[in-house]
Amino acid sequence: MTKAVAAPDRTCVRVELGERSYDILIGPGLIADAGAQIAARLNGINAAIISDETVAELYLPILREGLAREGIESTDIVLPAGEKTKSFEHLIEAAHGVLEARLERGDAVIALGGGVIGDLAGFVASVVRRGMRFVQIPTSLLAQVDSSVGGKTGINTGHGKNLIGAFHQPALVLADTAALDTLSEREFRAGYAEVAKYGLIDRPDFFAWLEDNWPQVFTGGPARIEAIATSCRAKADVVAADERENGKRALLNLGHTFGHALEAAVGYDGRRLVHGEAVAIGLVLAHEFSARMNLASPDDARRVAAHLKAVGLPTALGDIDGDLPAPDILMHHIAQDKKVKRGKLTFVLTRGIGQSFIADDVPSSEVLGFLKEKHPQ
Amino acid sequence: MTKAVAAPDRTCVRVELGERSYDILIGPGLIADAGAQIAARLNGINAAIISDETVAELYLPILREGLAREGIESTDIVLPAGEKTKSFEHLIEAAHGVLEARLERGDAVIALGGGVIGDLAGFVASVVRRGMRFVQIPTSLLAQVDSSVGGKTGINTGHGKNLIGAFHQPALVLADTAALDTLSEREFRAGYAEVAKYGLIDRPDFFAWLEDNWPQVFTGGPARIEAIATSCRAKADVVAADERENGKRALLNLGHTFGHALEAAVGYDGRRLVHGEAVAIGLVLAHEFSARMNLASPDDARRVAAHLKAVGLPTALGDIDGDLPAPDILMHHIAQDKKVKRGKLTFVLTRGIGQSFIADDVPSSEVLGFLKEKHPQ
Repeated sequence: MTKAVAAPDRTCVRVELGERSYDILIGPGLIADAGAQIAARLNGINAAIISDETVAELYLPILREGLAREGIESTDIVLPAGEKTKSFEHLIEAAHGVLEARLERGDAVIALGGGVIGDLAGFVASVVRRGMRFVQIPTSLLAQVDSSVGGKTGINTGHGKNLIGAFHQPALVLADTAALDTLSEREFRAGYAEVAKYGLIDRPDFFAWLEDNWPQVFTGGPARIEAIATSCRAKADVVAADERENGKRALLNLGHTFGHALEAAVGYDGRRLVHGEAVAIGLVLAHEFSARMNLASPDDARRVAAHLKAVGLPTALGDIDGDLPAPDILMHHIAQDKKVKRGKLTFVLTRGIGQSFIADDVPSSEVLGFLKEKHPQ
Repeated sequence: MTKAVAAPDRTCVRVELGERSYDILIGPGLIADAGAQIAARLNGINAAIISDETVAELYLPILREGLAREGIESTDIVLPAGEKTKSFEHLIEAAHGVLEARLERGDAVIALGGGVIGDLAGFVASVVRRGMRFVQIPTSLLAQVDSSVGGKTGINTGHGKNLIGAFHQPALVLADTAALDTLSEREFRAGYAEVAKYGLIDRPDFFAWLEDNWPQVFTGGPARIEAIATSCRAKADVVAADERENGKRALLNLGHTFGHALEAAVGYDGRRLVHGEAVAIGLVLAHEFSARMNLASPDDARRVAAHLKAVGLPTALGDIDGDLPAPDILMHHIAQDKKVKRGKLTFVLTRGIGQSFIADDVPSSEVLGFLKEKHPQ
């Protein structure tokens, strides 16, 4: 297999998973160059591109052109944009589309889009013919630093988010940093919450670097590539240590137990709260709750809140538009979250910036008391 | 983990797959004993039992009782009997049932039934919460010697059988040989085709033993346990060498390329032809086609046909009730089969009894010519 050489303004992060290892290429122009990058790694394949209406309009023609140049035949499956697409209904639609194109096991499913498309397309790739090859071309910051890396795929059901899915690693991830220029400010900011999260998990120097350099990350250029590469490296390290989330991988859920409960509390209404915003509030709450449990200094929680606020992210329950359910309803959503093990609450807590850890046995009474304090009503 | 001791009339076959290794216990009374066997291996779990209406009526109460005795709480999901249950519709129904029961990743999905239930329940176990534990309690001969071993799970779509699924190994297989006494003669015979297949793949001595001992396999007792254990061992060896079917595992498809085409040709109408019957005809055709290609002696094909006929299985296209589509339509079904690689026909052929091999480049003109010769009209 020939290896395509990375252009000088590109970074390559390797995810080490034995025979399932793969590269994440990060830099501008990778959508146009995807055909060459894929052809250099996956020999003689054809492909199905799964995308959404918004992203397809911007990038599908240029991707197909690049694939065609390399002799890769492609079919496209364009789905509605939005979280509702992560459903059984669209899984079935996309799977039938791949079968209709008569693709075989050695062929590839390519995800072109944000986290929703990546999660759905990865699940399609994992179940059609019991597992096809999979290439991620994430076009949102959230997808580039989080969902496209690590092999978690899935859809939502009435019982909750991501409850149906598979672990299915991509063969290649192409993060085109220029594609982020077309994101709304709000969407970029939401993805940034996950970037900051990696600093808070175990990279205090990265968090400090972000406090100084975040404006350049938003503007684009080398600082953006650096922030995305560091985030991917952080996630890749955790995933390599615990691919199927039996232990350490749960650290990636820092801020997410509170965050998921808030998303559920607003009925997953993206006008009120998108995932990254919920994570931003969740990160602050996780630090505040850790301080309340005398595990960390309240100064750390204040520092986290100050940075996320500077960036323009919400940091408190009161920052969410409209009424929130009462604390005991929020508590119910937390208990519904899948990180509950045998009836006990599992939380990612912290001893300070970059010192997070998994706590297996958090008393729900403490969490409820904390939510009552933090609730704006 | 404590290991339950096998009773003297039980055999244990180990499937060696590293950290995914598991035991197949074979013998009478294992449904009643399932609670104890599961509790000895999977600590502190709860379970969802997926079954069909026919099997549930016979065995669900005794299984639940045994689980309850060991403190394993169980919920049951009972689906209609028959191949049509291997659908997205019932996958969704069963997955919701498991989530409704609030089971977690460490809990188990138990398949109680034949191949349809095993394939569906295994797929449910693989996708709910991105992978739960899975226990197979196969109640048909076909499921005991074939589908319950090796981790292939899946459902059918309009494009074909088993085109959507996953590789998901069980944690334990309990083959209760007494349960086979409630099978119809026709269903037992159909499963027997897969037993004979293992002899034909690479165990000529086993095939010869079957020629002498098949009546005792049908009656029950030690010969039946022996035949099932040898079949499981044969399959386990192939699966251990090639878990995800990148090579050698395709040998298990001996007789299946023709067989699947025949099933498709009768519209999967089980009144005309069930899977094992299609495999029986397919085994004979594979030997006859190998003879036509001058790879094996026609005597071997005659010997295979004679044995399967003695058992009461169909062995020729003319044995199928009603009209068959023309040879070129049968050819179309063969080309649709998923063992087609990059447009070329892949077949399992043979050089004689127990000497099968994978042929990658079989000319479709030869296959079509052969079908024209064999076609009854």
